[in-house]
Amino acid sequence: MDAPLVTLPREVEVINIGLPLFARSVADQGRPVQQVEWRIPAGGDRRAVAALQVLYGPRAAAIDEANAEVVRRLDRGVPVLVDVATAGDVVPDFGDRTILHCGPPIEWTRVCDPLRRSIRAAVVAEGWAGDVAAAHRLLEDGVIRLEPANHHGVVVPMATAIGPSAPVFVVVNQEGGTRAFAPINQGPGDVAWFGRETDAAVERLRFLRDVAGPMLRWIVRRAGPIDVLSLASQGIQMGDDIHMRTQAATNLLLRNLLPWIAEYDGPGRVEFARYVSGNHLFFLNLAMAAAKSLTLWAEQVEGASIVTSMARNGTDFGIRLPGSDRWYLAEAPPVEDALYYSGYGPQESARDIGDSAVLELVGLGGPAAAGSPAVAAFLGGTMRDAIRATEEMAQICVGESSRFKLPTLDNRGTPVGVDVRRVVELAIRPKINTGILHVSQGIGQVGAGVATAPIGCFVDALLALAGPGS
Amino acid sequence: MDAPLVTLPREVEVINIGLPLFARSVADQGRPVQQVEWRIPAGGDRRAVAALQVLYGPRAAAIDEANAEVVRRLDRGVPVLVDVATAGDVVPDFGDRTILHCGPPIEWTRVCDPLRRSIRAAVVAEGWAGDVAAAHRLLEDGVIRLEPANHHGVVVPMATAIGPSAPVFVVVNQEGGTRAFAPINQGPGDVAWFGRETDAAVERLRFLRDVAGPMLRWIVRRAGPIDVLSLASQGIQMGDDIHMRTQAATNLLLRNLLPWIAEYDGPGRVEFARYVSGNHLFFLNLAMAAAKSLTLWAEQVEGASIVTSMARNGTDFGIRLPGSDRWYLAEAPPVEDALYYSGYGPQESARDIGDSAVLELVGLGGPAAAGSPAVAAFLGGTMRDAIRATEEMAQICVGESSRFKLPTLDNRGTPVGVDVRRVVELAIRPKINTGILHVSQGIGQVGAGVATAPIGCFVDALLALAGPGS
Repeated sequence: MDAPLVTLPREVEVINIGLPLFARSVADQGRPVQQVEWRIPAGGDRRAVAALQVLYGPRAAAIDEANAEVVRRLDRGVPVLVDVATAGDVVPDFGDRTILHCGPPIEWTRVCDPLRRSIRAAVVAEGWAGDVAAAHRLLEDGVIRLEPANHHGVVVPMATAIGPSAPVFVVVNQEGGTRAFAPINQGPGDVAWFGRETDAAVERLRFLRDVAGPMLRWIVRRAGPIDVLSLASQGIQMGDDIHMRTQAATNLLLRNLLPWIAEYDGPGRVEFARYVSGNHLFFLNLAMAAAKSLTLWAEQVEGASIVTSMARNGTDFGIRLPGSDRWYLAEAPPVEDALYYSGYGPQESARDIGDSAVLELVGLGGPAAAGSPAVAAFLGGTMRDAIRATEEMAQICVGESSRFKLPTLDNRGTPVGVDVRRVVELAIRPKINTGILHVSQGIGQVGAGVATAPIGCFVDALLALAGPGS
Repeated sequence: MDAPLVTLPREVEVINIGLPLFARSVADQGRPVQQVEWRIPAGGDRRAVAALQVLYGPRAAAIDEANAEVVRRLDRGVPVLVDVATAGDVVPDFGDRTILHCGPPIEWTRVCDPLRRSIRAAVVAEGWAGDVAAAHRLLEDGVIRLEPANHHGVVVPMATAIGPSAPVFVVVNQEGGTRAFAPINQGPGDVAWFGRETDAAVERLRFLRDVAGPMLRWIVRRAGPIDVLSLASQGIQMGDDIHMRTQAATNLLLRNLLPWIAEYDGPGRVEFARYVSGNHLFFLNLAMAAAKSLTLWAEQVEGASIVTSMARNGTDFGIRLPGSDRWYLAEAPPVEDALYYSGYGPQESARDIGDSAVLELVGLGGPAAAGSPAVAAFLGGTMRDAIRATEEMAQICVGESSRFKLPTLDNRGTPVGVDVRRVVELAIRPKINTGILHVSQGIGQVGAGVATAPIGCFVDALLALAGPGS
């Protein structure tokens, strides 16, 4: 027998860098293998790589220091609910004949169908038009000004649009002094924030203004101030992600408010109780206002690479960095990893919409997926799928929450502080747990799922941060 | 160099049976090891081994068939809350001048301190005595009859004692037709079910009778029937074990009832709202009544080896098997794996007490530990510790719940159906998540923890089931 040309080793142990395919085939053959995650930085985009070299190179120390302060503010601010008030009375620079809408700035002609309907419903609820057709003409004629809610310290979920008579939660960040606002959640069903403009949808807006708002104002002034994120952190321990699911936090809040609900002697107590009993997303808007009060504080820090605005109007997806008003835009993505109501699917689905992605910036929503069986249902069904989503977010985040703790990960904090450098370098984009609206017929919600942020706006933000010299 | 006397193998792979110590030392040396769980059956008790030989031998098929039916009933019964009523009006054979107490039958002279106080408080609340001293004399004189709540289809948590005027939840098992009852939870603080007999504790009993009972009756008759275990199964997904922690299920129930709470126009609406707002164990008693309605159905099956009563009066720990009224008793154990309120410890702690262990028989409490961060805190702090507790229960249970699903275990059902054969064979005793009362001074709750059932009553039940022939 001839001697072998090559002497094969008797034992093989492999370290594989990059494509996991090779590692898997070694493992399949029963040998030990260490997989090292590695990908081509920024997908090989040369301008982005050059920017990263600057931002991870000479400027890294300054950015890291700014980022640490941004994360501290996102993590340590203490937003408390202090009041419920009429938007026009408390929101800065609301202006006449103005509707605040979700997402980055947009002209009427580019507004998507569900948001158009919601804006028209708000115009009718304000009494500026007798019906949605008349409202449409006012909007076409440019008589009504459209303003991004985000430019006024306000955040609104899904396709919400509000006029000055809408009641808003007033949330103050006790550490940073920043104030933020969000309207009262409109609840499920035939409602404008889901892109409906029926009489019932308009009526719900009037109910919030005339019944729920005054009653909540009476209650909050007696029960408050309420530490919003203390409730959120308990919710996280109870399977909420505080975005797609706010069931536990809603219920905790309502049990806290129960004595005042029972005591309230004004009109509509029973009507309000029925509305809130049927609305497990009641806490959503409050959590958003709390998150916004944190990002408003964080965005005062100059020179950081952490995203402090992330919002969608159904047409554009936009982000902003601290110390600047500039939006970096990309096309709003579709919502994937979705579960649809019976009879609907991707073809009937509007694009990702709403300001609720502010939650993903402070450690809620996508970053908290690992704690939420309800979110896991959208990501493959098991807690392992949900844990993977949180771990992916951790790769692009700078810090960990000291208040939102995940039991499934040994009480590790949720990832906080989305760093545009990491997003672009790793080409891992934030995931946002969200609802899905019908694209064109005003049918309302047709499902829910997970949207993945588009990469373009992160690359643009990165290039701008690096400056023209890079 | 001499040849070695023994040729050592170059690779060692070990299968270790029994004591895990050996397996660990192999693993510590970096070699593969398979640990096989094995212990001496029944700890080597010859009578028990003989009984097991009969019950796992010639009679195994008949017992397994009976057990399957018992598990089906525990798992598939549908307990619904249909009413809140005065105990004396609805509880079978309540009798005059009778107090129902937790646990197996017991004479006054053997009753532990916290239960004595609770009984005296109930006697005063009934108006049979002007104060607790007078109540004490009536009890010493045997004028008042003590009856185990369990003998009347009633279950009561901790040191609860009730007279005929107490309001009770009426729960009907829609599948099996069995009815069970539980009083309204007394809430935290200065309360009789924690072994207090102050004026405030008596006042709370009167409040439940005069305010909460009538109001809940009005509400339940409008809102009901309410599927109790549907709420419990949602609670499990939200971190409740539905014994030590019922926060999520309580809140779900209250949000469901909110419209009627707001609508109620009788006296005490605000007082009731304050009481229930501060009571996160409100759901506990309701879950117990639901569990009891299942065990009442299951215990109609003859010849099974699955425990259908498990209750403690603070002196004795007792179990019963289907088809028989006989209690098998052992000394009530201390509560271990405990967290104490500041200033207290094991030396001030009463023994394990209450009927709430009925929950552990239907897949709640200990069997549901793996889903509960709150319970994990008592078992070592991590979800792994809690998962271990559930896995241990699974070893002594015959089935898995089809409704209580644990997200942390890929939605596996909680273990259901404690088989005395397995308990004795493996010497693994059920664990019960429970509170701890002060042993002697009427101080109330001093902590919470996990009690491990004593083995003696299981051995006695096993021997009785095997019969004198074994």
